[in-house]
Amino acid sequence: MRIPAIRRTLLLAATACSALLAACGSADGLRVKEVGSYHVGGRAVTLSGLPEKEIVYSPGSPPVKLNPNGDFAVEQMYTRYTRLVAPRGKVPLQLWHGGGLAGMTFETKPDGGPGWEMFFLKQGWDVYVSDAVERGRASWARYPEIFKGEPVFRTGKEAWELFRFGKTYDTDPAKRVALEGTQFPVASFAQFTKQSIPRWATNDAATQAAYDAYVNQACPCVIVVHSQGGNFAFNSALKYPDKVKALVAVETSGSPDPATADFARLKNVPMLWVWGDYLDQYPFWQTIFKRQEAFRQGIVNAGGRGDVIVLPQRGIQGNSHMMMMDRNSDQVAALIQQWLADRGLVK
Amino acid sequence: MRIPAIRRTLLLAATACSALLAACGSADGLRVKEVGSYHVGGRAVTLSGLPEKEIVYSPGSPPVKLNPNGDFAVEQMYTRYTRLVAPRGKVPLQLWHGGGLAGMTFETKPDGGPGWEMFFLKQGWDVYVSDAVERGRASWARYPEIFKGEPVFRTGKEAWELFRFGKTYDTDPAKRVALEGTQFPVASFAQFTKQSIPRWATNDAATQAAYDAYVNQACPCVIVVHSQGGNFAFNSALKYPDKVKALVAVETSGSPDPATADFARLKNVPMLWVWGDYLDQYPFWQTIFKRQEAFRQGIVNAGGRGDVIVLPQRGIQGNSHMMMMDRNSDQVAALIQQWLADRGLVK
Repeated sequence: MRIPAIRRTLLLAATACSALLAACGSADGLRVKEVGSYHVGGRAVTLSGLPEKEIVYSPGSPPVKLNPNGDFAVEQMYTRYTRLVAPRGKVPLQLWHGGGLAGMTFETKPDGGPGWEMFFLKQGWDVYVSDAVERGRASWARYPEIFKGEPVFRTGKEAWELFRFGKTYDTDPAKRVALEGTQFPVASFAQFTKQSIPRWATNDAATQAAYDAYVNQACPCVIVVHSQGGNFAFNSALKYPDKVKALVAVETSGSPDPATADFARLKNVPMLWVWGDYLDQYPFWQTIFKRQEAFRQGIVNAGGRGDVIVLPQRGIQGNSHMMMMDRNSDQVAALIQQWLADRGLVK
Repeated sequence: MRIPAIRRTLLLAATACSALLAACGSADGLRVKEVGSYHVGGRAVTLSGLPEKEIVYSPGSPPVKLNPNGDFAVEQMYTRYTRLVAPRGKVPLQLWHGGGLAGMTFETKPDGGPGWEMFFLKQGWDVYVSDAVERGRASWARYPEIFKGEPVFRTGKEAWELFRFGKTYDTDPAKRVALEGTQFPVASFAQFTKQSIPRWATNDAATQAAYDAYVNQACPCVIVVHSQGGNFAFNSALKYPDKVKALVAVETSGSPDPATADFARLKNVPMLWVWGDYLDQYPFWQTIFKRQEAFRQGIVNAGGRGDVIVLPQRGIQGNSHMMMMDRNSDQVAALIQQWLADRGLVK
């Protein structure tokens, strides 16, 4: 092995270096140009008239007089990106989380396995993982002075039953009965619940404004959106149809009203819905499914592309609402990847 | 360039591939093995006796009866890591944020430049960026039922004056006067305030427990800690001195009581304090500096290593409390990198 000679040649030909790195392959990891993050959107608010307080912030540090009145940055959102040296995705891929959760939905799975962020990075996409207004690193604001209403905290019971892990929850893990054949790693349920983030039911307008600003700044892009995020993504696509090159709706729970939506604007935004298993056992999910299908049909009727994958109809069984954390998450992601490739979005 | 031949050789000798990649250098980006995240620490809490509510989570989705009583995961913390294929740091490097902030302290700077996370990745460290209990993706819990006390929101005025950007704040950016020669990018102050995260003054025990669990799980490591994080890092080092290979205290604001701390336990944990400029103009920061110096002296007196860099004494002027966001952040980080290398922690 004459490394020095090879090195000299490489220094003379930068493109050769890229070729060699490609030849070295994925065993040598991702080639990452940059990791980073930023906040986008939001507004400045000034509070006044609240009483003063005295606070000791950390042991050994002198007390500070705290005047809670003043200027605050509120209603911004946060995104974190990993940009590759030579992306194969023609545009960045954004992962938008659902309700009561934040971006870690798509990071390492509760059972420790790699999640969809890592999957799509390996497929060669620049990947963005965001936290919506009020969640995670996006931060939240004083209520009721700035945020109207109060925060909602998801219980273990709601997570277990709503996300189709099992029919009835019990505080004692030994007494919980999971749905037969579930792909969700129920032994990691406690780890999953650590991802829960308080939410407000009153921040939709602010959240939408921040997502719009995000799409305007970070796109053109592909959006993969989960659950509650759906309504925001559809609205951002309606606002910036030229910026959203594809939209993958993973069990999206809301949408603009199909009766009044301007579907013609979405004609060139291909969309794919992905649904897990057990929907027929849950009236709540059937209602959501039917509304989403009405929205999808509106796109198809207007001459757009609205595809749908119901996983059990493809012989893929046992997927929960949190399919990006299920044991077969890569299998589901591979269907999305193939659909994106079929849309011509992969080099 | 006979790439196929080279490729065949490489496949026969994996180490050669690594050598070639090293030769290709940083122009081809970081070689990243894995990005990921997890929650660590925390406990399960059950609430009961709170009244029921009805909530519509997203437009078009049916209303859900919400029973706020139930099981919650609380007081966990969050960490996000970027692991390299061939790290040069002998152990991972952890970045711990300060008060009223979360991990993005160390990510992209408010002015858009690369922060310390990217700096230390480029130096070859596996880098972990965490959110402490109650902040960011670590999430927070209902108060006063679980968290005692109420959250504190940092005003623009407090950030401007406490972090030594300028002496007196004004809501109107045009009327703010920055400290002469400041390295902080004051034109990006509004972007910086979007990083503010509410904090509690009553969660120190829970925060300490989570940090201890984090160190126990993720270390051996180097800890670079800022401001309020200092007290937690010193305590974790006292608890797990074998796990903390070095501790860099960046304007740390608190510590265990120097009169009673068991400094002998820290004998093999080399420490470095780094201080910015303008301390003599702020009685608050002088008090903190003196207490930190007493703690450092305790380490030195017990035969340990406690080094200190006061940047202006090295001819580096204008640094604020947020030196990882200052224009010369790389220059400051380079001093830390050199000190870590001098400790034998870099291959």
